[in-house]
Amino acid sequence: MEMHFDQHISRQFNEELEGLKTEMLEMGGLVARQVADAVDALANADSELAEKVLQVEEEIDRCEMELDEHATLIIAKRQPAASDLRMVMSVIRNARDLERMGDEASKIAKMAIALTDEGTAPRGYTEIRHIANAVRKMLDDALDAYTRFDVEAALKTLAEDEQVDMDYRSAIRELITYMMEDPRSISRVMNVLWTLRSLERIGDHAKNICEQVVYLVKGADIRHGNKKNLR
Amino acid sequence: MEMHFDQHISRQFNEELEGLKTEMLEMGGLVARQVADAVDALANADSELAEKVLQVEEEIDRCEMELDEHATLIIAKRQPAASDLRMVMSVIRNARDLERMGDEASKIAKMAIALTDEGTAPRGYTEIRHIANAVRKMLDDALDAYTRFDVEAALKTLAEDEQVDMDYRSAIRELITYMMEDPRSISRVMNVLWTLRSLERIGDHAKNICEQVVYLVKGADIRHGNKKNLR
Repeated sequence: MEMHFDQHISRQFNEELEGLKTEMLEMGGLVARQVADAVDALANADSELAEKVLQVEEEIDRCEMELDEHATLIIAKRQPAASDLRMVMSVIRNARDLERMGDEASKIAKMAIALTDEGTAPRGYTEIRHIANAVRKMLDDALDAYTRFDVEAALKTLAEDEQVDMDYRSAIRELITYMMEDPRSISRVMNVLWTLRSLERIGDHAKNICEQVVYLVKGADIRHGNKKNLR
Repeated sequence: MEMHFDQHISRQFNEELEGLKTEMLEMGGLVARQVADAVDALANADSELAEKVLQVEEEIDRCEMELDEHATLIIAKRQPAASDLRMVMSVIRNARDLERMGDEASKIAKMAIALTDEGTAPRGYTEIRHIANAVRKMLDDALDAYTRFDVEAALKTLAEDEQVDMDYRSAIRELITYMMEDPRSISRVMNVLWTLRSLERIGDHAKNICEQVVYLVKGADIRHGNKKNLR
């Protein structure tokens, strides 16, 4: 799908908008890497990789602040309207969701360190792997949909969040039953629970990016299941 | 503290900015009410009040979308710069934080319903009450600091989040120990844990509003502990 931005007087304005988009997508790539590394660190009890994730978090925070600053500058200098303005606003919103995903990746990295210290692998790793794969795919697909301004792909990805939520809830129920049967495992299994929670939130944030694709292309706000805004 | 907005050609523009601020603060009042009701519903096993919280959530979602729309319209129509633009941007960001707090209030309301169904009061209610009071105060103070554009008050409120985080972590540790001692309580205590988690997040969001007061007045981005930006 082709996105038709308003005709700009200045070619430089076009380049600024393209630059903003690229910057956001680069941040997205960095965050996707963080999520993947955090999950791998947990699955392989690799505390070195987990430490690396914690170090990169600062870089992601910086990305968000820079993106915000660049976006605000463009608004002040270029006074964008219509789809240009929506594009700048969507970048600001996505930057925030990406930063939150980075936070969740750091939380998972901390759990990886805690779980590595405790030795034996607890229950719930299969569920973590399963849900992690689903939300990583959601994030990749959401960024891809944004890259191509592809509403169909965004709506398809958005719908996947329901399955993630269902799998999350069923995993939590299972782990609570397991803790009741083996109370000595509680402290370890709690770390698995927090990890699942973080993954579920990453899925929510990926969903938000999809909603921004629709907002950007269609000018419709479909947040909060507000599909009726989509014509 | 007095905030000096740029001199506006149009008096109507001034009124639009004031209107936007009022609209955001009204949303803030509504969310503060939701948080209070959700906690009361839990403390008093009042599932009717909890149901009311769940019903009002939609209204909050609508508030966020409307605020976003009004803010974007002002940007497109008035092309604000400097502190005017920062004010509009801060409203957009605050609306998002407020909406997230509303989400957390709904999660607490759901826990209240689950806990009421299960009858007997589990451990952790004292901690919930304690942390709930702290974050409710943070939210009130954050909105108040925004109303008066008071940087000192915002920084003071922001600092309170550290104590909330500490209390939260110590409560979680205690409840995990309790679950190990009484495994039959696990499923009930888990609902208390999720509630504490929601309260802790509400504190985080209140902190974000404080950061927006500083950004708005000083033009400095102090997120992610970036205090060096504050001169």
